Amino acid sequence: MTTDYDSVFKDALAAVRAEGRYRVFADLERERGAFPNAKRYLADGTAQDVIVWCSNDYLGMGQDPRVLEAMHDALDRVGAGAGGTRNIAGTTHFHVALERELAALHGKEAALLFTSGYISNEATLSTLARLLPGAVILSDELNHASMIAGIRGGRGSKLIWRHNDTDHLEELLRGLPRDVPKIIAFESVYSMDGDFGPVEAVADLAERYGALTYLDEVHGVGLYGEGGGVAQERGVADRIDCIEGTLGKAIGVMGGYIAGSAAMVDAIRSYASSFIFTTALSPVLVAGALASVRILREEQSLRDRHQERAATLKARLTEAGLPVMDSPSHIVPLMVGDPVACKAVTDELLTEHGIYVQPINYPTVAKGTERLRFSPTPLHTDAHMDALLEALEGIWEARGLQRAAA
Amino acid sequence: MTTDYDSVFKDALAAVRAEGRYRVFADLERERGAFPNAKRYLADGTAQDVIVWCSNDYLGMGQDPRVLEAMHDALDRVGAGAGGTRNIAGTTHFHVALERELAALHGKEAALLFTSGYISNEATLSTLARLLPGAVILSDELNHASMIAGIRGGRGSKLIWRHNDTDHLEELLRGLPRDVPKIIAFESVYSMDGDFGPVEAVADLAERYGALTYLDEVHGVGLYGEGGGVAQERGVADRIDCIEGTLGKAIGVMGGYIAGSAAMVDAIRSYASSFIFTTALSPVLVAGALASVRILREEQSLRDRHQERAATLKARLTEAGLPVMDSPSHIVPLMVGDPVACKAVTDELLTEHGIYVQPINYPTVAKGTERLRFSPTPLHTDAHMDALLEALEGIWEARGLQRAAA
Ligand SMILES: Cc1ncc(COP(=O)(O)O)c(C=O)c1O
Ligand SMILES: Cc1ncc(COP(=O)(O)O)c(C=O)c1O
Repeated sequence: MTTDYDSVFKDALAAVRAEGRYRVFADLERERGAFPNAKRYLADGTAQDVIVWCSNDYLGMGQDPRVLEAMHDALDRVGAGAGGTRNIAGTTHFHVALERELAALHGKEAALLFTSGYISNEATLSTLARLLPGAVILSDELNHASMIAGIRGGRGSKLIWRHNDTDHLEELLRGLPRDVPKIIAFESVYSMDGDFGPVEAVADLAERYGALTYLDEVHGVGLYGEGGGVAQERGVADRIDCIEGTLGKAIGVMGGYIAGSAAMVDAIRSYASSFIFTTALSPVLVAGALASVRILREEQSLRDRHQERAATLKARLTEAGLPVMDSPSHIVPLMVGDPVACKAVTDELLTEHGIYVQPINYPTVAKGTERLRFSPTPLHTDAHMDALLEALEGIWEARGLQRAAA
Repeated sequence: MTTDYDSVFKDALAAVRAEGRYRVFADLERERGAFPNAKRYLADGTAQDVIVWCSNDYLGMGQDPRVLEAMHDALDRVGAGAGGTRNIAGTTHFHVALERELAALHGKEAALLFTSGYISNEATLSTLARLLPGAVILSDELNHASMIAGIRGGRGSKLIWRHNDTDHLEELLRGLPRDVPKIIAFESVYSMDGDFGPVEAVADLAERYGALTYLDEVHGVGLYGEGGGVAQERGVADRIDCIEGTLGKAIGVMGGYIAGSAAMVDAIRSYASSFIFTTALSPVLVAGALASVRILREEQSLRDRHQERAATLKARLTEAGLPVMDSPSHIVPLMVGDPVACKAVTDELLTEHGIYVQPINYPTVAKGTERLRFSPTPLHTDAHMDALLEALEGIWEARGLQRAAA
């Protein structure tokens, strides 16, 4: 490479560093059967025992013996990879079965797998925009990067509504001609604040204004309703046209999907480039996700324990006067409000206390709202919480950080 | 959903059907240890034994006992999924080790994993374009859909050069001011024709005109050189700035990557949305790919046998007067030249002979060049070839299909 190019890359990295948002990945090895315990490898080759407090394997399903068993079994039956695109030798019996199971989970006619939740959003939103000429996408301002990628990729028009503000959404809808195709895109749980999307109100507005509804349930699937997510819990899943989810968070594995009408799903299957021209999900992952979804549809107790753990952690942080953000969901954000302090707190938690939580800084959240984000799972015990609270109280005290408003 | 939307989707599907390119996925289950044997499930629930002739698991590594063992082991050690993005709890020790191994494979300073080869192309090309303001991407006209997605996503300028025509490429380069950043994007093996990209000539031109070189080695990695691909075999890997590959074809698992300078890789890591905002590859896949790459770097005999099998199949098709296309690589395309005939031939091969090969029709290849595409692996025996030849000869005869020019 002519050195010019490398120097441009170095400048770009210097810019990231200057903003205090250069990321160093923690090198982890979770210990199967002992989650949330993990080993963190250090640069010198030694390892430290840590408790993971920021995993999106929300229920620990990625360690569930029945999920692992299904994956061992698939490995032994069919091997490591799909060996081709879905169309060219890559569709296995596991894919067919999981697509049926996910359709049933959401009460939809059909479902379609993608290699990730990111791709399911990107592929579906961009393809919907292309299939519906002249369509306008109405997107919540805090929608995830993958939805934004899909909306940009479709190259149609878009309107941004203020976060969770259905009055604003209605105002925008009212301004559009009746015969313009409209897609309302939003999330059921916004994972950095932990607030819920207004699913019923959006369904009402969609009906009134003839819009198609697209709901990202990435942080809701497995966790709400009977595992079908927030829309199911609120009884409006049948009024959401396209439900999108991931296999990589509560389900504990990896991959993504959509569920909806047979015609819509078949059209996405037939037109979406990032669905068509890529190796299918490994059947090993698909088998694991299939086992996991079946378990999640049955075991309400996991969800109950999950909600109880989150509520307990929020209550304990509140009691201790720590600035826990008001989150109605399973996500427990603790405000710091400064990127440097945020990083320093997490560094101290990690090195001094063996507590691993990643700082959440810009661009993931707005500047000035930097935070810690805890995701307690059913496997986080009271003792884990004792240790966390003690560490946080000490750090907040020593550093003179902002407390909760009294 | 207001019925209007569904009817638009139905129309879109009718259009695909009318063009004869509606795809019905074969529902397969490979039999571990018996590849290329598989079961094909039929709509009535029964199953048929088939021989797979179109897998991109080119060497059967997806069934290699050492790869499976590594995956069983990872499952038992750390569980099913990564549980987070690379930055938030999703980087495991396996990811770090595989990135090091892939950098070494290609003789580069660094490597970076993505959830698929598709995403590695999309993420890297779009981010390169954004990091190099004013850059022009010079793209071979037959580049893969994922490269095109990346080039479109970067929203920079692009110039298309005629397939493998380095005179045309030079003409375009000559027309650009010296100080404009230039990226030449091409593939080492074009997988539908089986021809090689002109890697040495492109490296020469890049040097002369100060361009950055981006090479998709998706169909070369594991198969050429000492596993490092075509650029390695030709001794020019050090003159390719960015090598992109997949873990889903010769490596037999799933995922994608790039390898290049430390600064370039770190810049992509820090800026690419579809790298940052997605759950990391499952450590199970990463462990399998790591074992596979290590084996492929050692075992030249697998590559020798693979080339021998491809050469033998081409020779036998030629001898039989069947219209095998002139492919210097491991890919064996047989021209049909009509989408309906192409589909009919593959249907007959499947139902009458238990031979599974997918028809390759538009838009994967140009209209009028519809074809069968065989990928013989080291595990396809002479007996498999006998059966294939006999079936093809019968079908060509009975249907009066075009023979090879004498
Ligand atoms: C709201 C939201 N949607 C989509 C995704 C992407 O899902 P996946 O990790 O499966 O790519 C994420 C997180 O990664 C997310 O937070
Ligand atoms: C040339 C080329 N590049 C990239 C890809 C995408 O790789 P992956 O299947 O890992 O997404 C493919 C095929 O799928 C391909 O043929």
